[in-house]
Amino acid sequence: MKKTIIGNLLKKYKMKKLVALISLFFIEKAISQQTEAPKNKFVLVVHGGAGTILKGQMSAERERAYTESLKEALEKGSAILKKGGSAMDAVEASVRILEDNALFNAGKGAVFTNNGKNELDASIMNGRTLEAGAVAGVTTIKNPVSAARAVMEKSPHVMMTGNGAEQFAGEQGLEIVDPSYFYTEERWKSLQKAKREDSIQKLKNDSTKTDHAFSEFLYSPLPVGGKYGTVGAVALDQHGNLAAATSTGGMTNKKFGRVGDSPIIGAGTYANNKTVAVSGTGWGEYFIRLVMAKTVSDMMEFGKMKLDAAADEMIMKRLPDLGGDGGLIAVDKDGNIAMPFCSEGMYRGYIKEAGTAVVKIYK
Amino acid sequence: MKKTIIGNLLKKYKMKKLVALISLFFIEKAISQQTEAPKNKFVLVVHGGAGTILKGQMSAERERAYTESLKEALEKGSAILKKGGSAMDAVEASVRILEDNALFNAGKGAVFTNNGKNELDASIMNGRTLEAGAVAGVTTIKNPVSAARAVMEKSPHVMMTGNGAEQFAGEQGLEIVDPSYFYTEERWKSLQKAKREDSIQKLKNDSTKTDHAFSEFLYSPLPVGGKYGTVGAVALDQHGNLAAATSTGGMTNKKFGRVGDSPIIGAGTYANNKTVAVSGTGWGEYFIRLVMAKTVSDMMEFGKMKLDAAADEMIMKRLPDLGGDGGLIAVDKDGNIAMPFCSEGMYRGYIKEAGTAVVKIYK
Repeated sequence: MKKTIIGNLLKKYKMKKLVALISLFFIEKAISQQTEAPKNKFVLVVHGGAGTILKGQMSAERERAYTESLKEALEKGSAILKKGGSAMDAVEASVRILEDNALFNAGKGAVFTNNGKNELDASIMNGRTLEAGAVAGVTTIKNPVSAARAVMEKSPHVMMTGNGAEQFAGEQGLEIVDPSYFYTEERWKSLQKAKREDSIQKLKNDSTKTDHAFSEFLYSPLPVGGKYGTVGAVALDQHGNLAAATSTGGMTNKKFGRVGDSPIIGAGTYANNKTVAVSGTGWGEYFIRLVMAKTVSDMMEFGKMKLDAAADEMIMKRLPDLGGDGGLIAVDKDGNIAMPFCSEGMYRGYIKEAGTAVVKIYK
Repeated sequence: MKKTIIGNLLKKYKMKKLVALISLFFIEKAISQQTEAPKNKFVLVVHGGAGTILKGQMSAERERAYTESLKEALEKGSAILKKGGSAMDAVEASVRILEDNALFNAGKGAVFTNNGKNELDASIMNGRTLEAGAVAGVTTIKNPVSAARAVMEKSPHVMMTGNGAEQFAGEQGLEIVDPSYFYTEERWKSLQKAKREDSIQKLKNDSTKTDHAFSEFLYSPLPVGGKYGTVGAVALDQHGNLAAATSTGGMTNKKFGRVGDSPIIGAGTYANNKTVAVSGTGWGEYFIRLVMAKTVSDMMEFGKMKLDAAADEMIMKRLPDLGGDGGLIAVDKDGNIAMPFCSEGMYRGYIKEAGTAVVKIYK
């Protein structure tokens, strides 16, 4: 009925053709906006650990080395995002760069355990599917983040540990190396220093009969010099998908098969397209107890908080209130980023579709 | 000034003594109410696993055995709560009873891994302090839940794995057993059955050249018969403190050092005095990906949801939507309990300050 009246009106004024053309113009514009808007938008954020990183104690050369390495990780990952690649591919590629770099406590350059080994942990999560993978306590996998991804994609499991995880990674054709590959002189010296400090503290405790709360542990394996080596990346790709990945060598002089937050989904790593992708770095025990990464997401999902407010509440308030420290990097579904830390510094950087890589170290 | 006037007035009317007596009466009443109200209130909830538990397939004898065992766990834990003991002591005691009982897949009676071992996982969390402890992949610790508690109380760590965790437990004086202690004929037969089914499936796949998604895994180590053996307990004590504990033998025929949700703080176990204590049982991978236990808490903390609504949203909606199944037990800070499951059945029970133990198995 209505249609006929309008049709008659149009006929009457001979405007049918014009209206059709105008309609087509607007329809085309609407379609092109739909596909173009997300086409360019992507974000990649990386970190290389948080802790007592002071400008006064850093040589210009060392500062430049860290900056260049973080830029390299950002460029590798963002090249994938630029071509329309997935957030998963980008975070894996960025973390692999940092794992292969001896400057960072992950992969090559990992710290030593009490018995002189390098035990590596990593995890990865896909915000689109909520699939996740993790490996813990592995000693022969060159790139633990890729092993975590294989666990996610090639097995029905989320987490594998120790020899079993290594066997699986080998069967999947991942690069297996001799444990000596991970050796660096600097980390070996750190272990010797930590052990000396332990002995001194032990002697002190013995002579004063002080009842130390954790006499088995003393100084270490608490973070030596308050520096937490962990690397991570979070990304939003052009298709609106989020991903997060984290990799670490743990704590110098650690004992007893200790596992920190890096391979724990919800603690060190979490991603959900509905909210945010998060990778943490800090005193792992506190990140586990706070279920850090998932809580940021839940504050946004259930508390309707913005990313900035949620990340700040967790890192600047709840973490130090409990006695821990560290930081996190995050990117939300709209491309907002957060990089808060309550330690002296955090190796961090980001890159967006338009700009060049931005890298920061200090407050 | 005021005091003098009132004093003079009281003197004038010779009521000083009377007023003092009345005041004392009210003050005493207020104090006694403060200490009496929480004095009696406590809640303990336990579970012994969820899955395809059908009345038609259960003998009366077996049903009675499960019921009696769950009651024993409830009585052991509630005796502690009745005397004013802590929620931590209660959940540990209840879980130890279930670990020592061969009916349940935790401690004695744990299922076998692919290479014929019993690898145990457990965790515990204190809602008052947010302290937590966990062990994963241990093979010689009689009561993994007590090892988890030792990690929490006697080390600066939250999670220890494998041999390292066993060494620590030994140093802490926990009971170490030969791995053969965990052997039960029933579980051994389950492993042989799972392996036969794997071989049949492998032959089928090979002959039809079907591209199975996880050809390494086939049927198992996915839950055999859809039954998830895990035990757990949550408690609210008379002091208003919450605690949660979970312990498991994992999945029959599991490979590659797979770790499920039970030792993951936030996934299988979480407790916070501000909100709730939760212990989960189900297809662990889905519980990890959903960060199950912490999400229930966060829905309450940030979404202002009631326990019932939060637990139902997670177990009856998000878990099956993702493709998983299982259940959880929870008690909130006000003593409300929830025991939802989306599988056929869940061994479960609770006891409160006033009543006797209530145990249920089916829907």
